[in-house]
Amino acid sequence: MFSTNCPSREILNHVTSRWGVLVLSALMDGTHRFSELRRKIDGVSEKMLAQTLQQLEMDGFVDRVSYPVVPPHVEYSLTPLGGQIGAQIDSLVDWIESNLPKIMKAQQARQG
Amino acid sequence: MFSTNCPSREILNHVTSRWGVLVLSALMDGTHRFSELRRKIDGVSEKMLAQTLQQLEMDGFVDRVSYPVVPPHVEYSLTPLGGQIGAQIDSLVDWIESNLPKIMKAQQARQG
Repeated sequence: MFSTNCPSREILNHVTSRWGVLVLSALMDGTHRFSELRRKIDGVSEKMLAQTLQQLEMDGFVDRVSYPVVPPHVEYSLTPLGGQIGAQIDSLVDWIESNLPKIMKAQQARQG
Repeated sequence: MFSTNCPSREILNHVTSRWGVLVLSALMDGTHRFSELRRKIDGVSEKMLAQTLQQLEMDGFVDRVSYPVVPPHVEYSLTPLGGQIGAQIDSLVDWIESNLPKIMKAQQARQG
């Protein structure tokens, strides 16, 4: 990871990106349709959500199942690998959220 | 974290940034001088390393101790809060590195 061009760096960027984190966290709660994810993730555009899901699908973290019905019905869920990295991301996010008061206090002490 | 403008989002960005991850990981091994960090973190510029350290210091994750000697001697180490988030980041990075063969196999299967 300390060397440049490490392939794990690219994976880290995908899973810790603005929308990557939120998509993984949302899917930790189970399978979602595209429209459900869009409602759940405040502020994401249709384009960014589609791109993020496609990236996570290419990395093998997300499964996309399309049902041949009208109107189209597409469901997204985590693969076993996606569930594992989702748990790591959730743990990091939970730590930040629980320690936010301490962090903001530290920020104010330094900046004040 | 699902709402826009969540302050934890900014912290997440600092600690998962390209250089943030590497600085935290390097300091998990103990106190380092600026020049030592620069040698350890392949590809980082003086400017980016200084900016990253300053950001992590403002967040309360890094302690900077300056010794009044000639030439200047500055040491960086993790605060207790920095050690905790550093452990979370290390765990995520370790997971990615150990699972990289599986991830790359999944990527090839999807893209092939």
